[in-house]
Amino acid sequence: MTKQKPIVVTIGGGTGSFVALSGLKYYDIDLNAIVAMTDSGGSTGKLRDQLGVLPPGDLRQALIALSEASEIWRKLFTYRFETGDLKGHNFGNIFLSAIEKITDSNQEAIDRAADVLQTCGRVIPITFDNCTLCAKYEDGTVFEGEANIDEETKSGVRIEKLYLKPSADINLEAKRVLERANSIVLGPGDLYTSILPNLIVSGVPDIFHYAKAKKILVVNLMTKVGQTEGFKVSDFINEIEKYLGEGSINYAVVNSQKPSKQLIKIYKDVDKADIVEDDLGGTYRRAKIIRADLLSDSAFEKSPSDVLKRSLIRHDPDKLAKVIHRLVTS
Amino acid sequence: MTKQKPIVVTIGGGTGSFVALSGLKYYDIDLNAIVAMTDSGGSTGKLRDQLGVLPPGDLRQALIALSEASEIWRKLFTYRFETGDLKGHNFGNIFLSAIEKITDSNQEAIDRAADVLQTCGRVIPITFDNCTLCAKYEDGTVFEGEANIDEETKSGVRIEKLYLKPSADINLEAKRVLERANSIVLGPGDLYTSILPNLIVSGVPDIFHYAKAKKILVVNLMTKVGQTEGFKVSDFINEIEKYLGEGSINYAVVNSQKPSKQLIKIYKDVDKADIVEDDLGGTYRRAKIIRADLLSDSAFEKSPSDVLKRSLIRHDPDKLAKVIHRLVTS
Repeated sequence: MTKQKPIVVTIGGGTGSFVALSGLKYYDIDLNAIVAMTDSGGSTGKLRDQLGVLPPGDLRQALIALSEASEIWRKLFTYRFETGDLKGHNFGNIFLSAIEKITDSNQEAIDRAADVLQTCGRVIPITFDNCTLCAKYEDGTVFEGEANIDEETKSGVRIEKLYLKPSADINLEAKRVLERANSIVLGPGDLYTSILPNLIVSGVPDIFHYAKAKKILVVNLMTKVGQTEGFKVSDFINEIEKYLGEGSINYAVVNSQKPSKQLIKIYKDVDKADIVEDDLGGTYRRAKIIRADLLSDSAFEKSPSDVLKRSLIRHDPDKLAKVIHRLVTS
Repeated sequence: MTKQKPIVVTIGGGTGSFVALSGLKYYDIDLNAIVAMTDSGGSTGKLRDQLGVLPPGDLRQALIALSEASEIWRKLFTYRFETGDLKGHNFGNIFLSAIEKITDSNQEAIDRAADVLQTCGRVIPITFDNCTLCAKYEDGTVFEGEANIDEETKSGVRIEKLYLKPSADINLEAKRVLERANSIVLGPGDLYTSILPNLIVSGVPDIFHYAKAKKILVVNLMTKVGQTEGFKVSDFINEIEKYLGEGSINYAVVNSQKPSKQLIKIYKDVDKADIVEDDLGGTYRRAKIIRADLLSDSAFEKSPSDVLKRSLIRHDPDKLAKVIHRLVTS
């Protein structure tokens, strides 16, 4: 009898998931990427509005991360047209949208893209329901739409409540894989626009309550203005457990290597972002704090695609995957 | 020693080539489709102008005709967006354009599309040179651009000279395969906008002169207003040999089955088109006239894609391929 591979499920979207999946794909695990369905900006937002398809952007990034196809396919799915009618549209998004229109099935679109990209894992939307991400701030303001929440930087005011309008139900495939998972990995990624948009889908907190998987949170390296401003490691755990229930996280993976002062200064100057302060000891609530050097020291040179080039201070895919894999198999 | 498969090269573009290739692909031959690079209308024309790529439309149709992939891929490459920024654009065209932008190579784009579509033959552009199709009419008028020639119906006036501006050289791949071919099949398809745009490329008439292949012309079923108005079978041969040299055609394949009066009336009323009259005996110049029932009797039901639905009176892919194959192997 062959031993079954451990089932690992990442939850997120965007660049953070890309980093985690890029590293984890080299391990002998059953890898599944659950991604948020609330992106409303850029090419993704336009295709969603104009064609009535589910937002393809986060699906595309996860598919590219898991791809074992030759460079040209990954380049193709990342390619953005620069002129004419197609200006600003991304080929991968167009591909996913076209198949969804033909088959009337989002999962079919993902599976066919996975064929072309020869992915070593599955990509699963958290929901198939069309919904809008909404954020209510402490001062009573409400922003609707992920792109608006991302762009409107309400400095100094925290998000009090994140919710979906209308509410959305978890996709059955996502439910099944979360129930069977040995480990669930949250993050890294934008807390309010990549991680939590998955966790506020109806049915998800329940699954976190009864699922036997190890729940691992990869804590972000940097804060984000207007969203996680001034957040320390404890704040990330608090905020996630506000939606999932206290004690939901079993492991919090925290970077122990400080970036250079020069890089930190760039972030402060350009993005008003700061490093996430590690304010915890060995455990916090039910979470064991795992510390390691997770910092990428080759932000530019090793980037397999322009997706990673956005961040100078970012997790190293290999270092991060090594720590996660150790937790998965421990 | 295994016997080498006969090398068959079709020359054309558009729906006519689609029909010939759709039938020929079931035979054990080395099949090659040379297509024109002068399309300037619709999605193809826009992508060509806006992105600086070679016109993808005829390449796409040939690739789909040769595809042995499952239905969904052929549907995807045929799919045309109906709303939003992508409205009117065809997915196959977008695919070919995106790869060409990434690789800066049109042949690479075709080969990658061929991978996805699992084609049973090669598709080769007649030229890689960017050029415009021009038609000078007997009354001195000149139209530039394939789409303009197609749309402007100069009834009653013949095209005196068809030429490219600037002149274009034959792609080396096309040259090589024509030199090695056992049979070269011209048509069916629009004479002035699908067949001749290949034959007026520099180098092509020379190859027809010295190449050992059997040169087979599939004569169209119907005339086309403003282009082949009033053309009989002899006119098609005359006109092609005007550009290739007298005696270039060895076989002319002519349909012997008359379409129903009802269908002929529809063509007259809607398109001002008439059936091509067979005015020849057993031979004409150096060409042997081959007659057979080539008429499709299931224009709507058997169509594998909407490409064929345009024509009610059209060649049957299987009947046509059978006749061609007999000539190829005789």
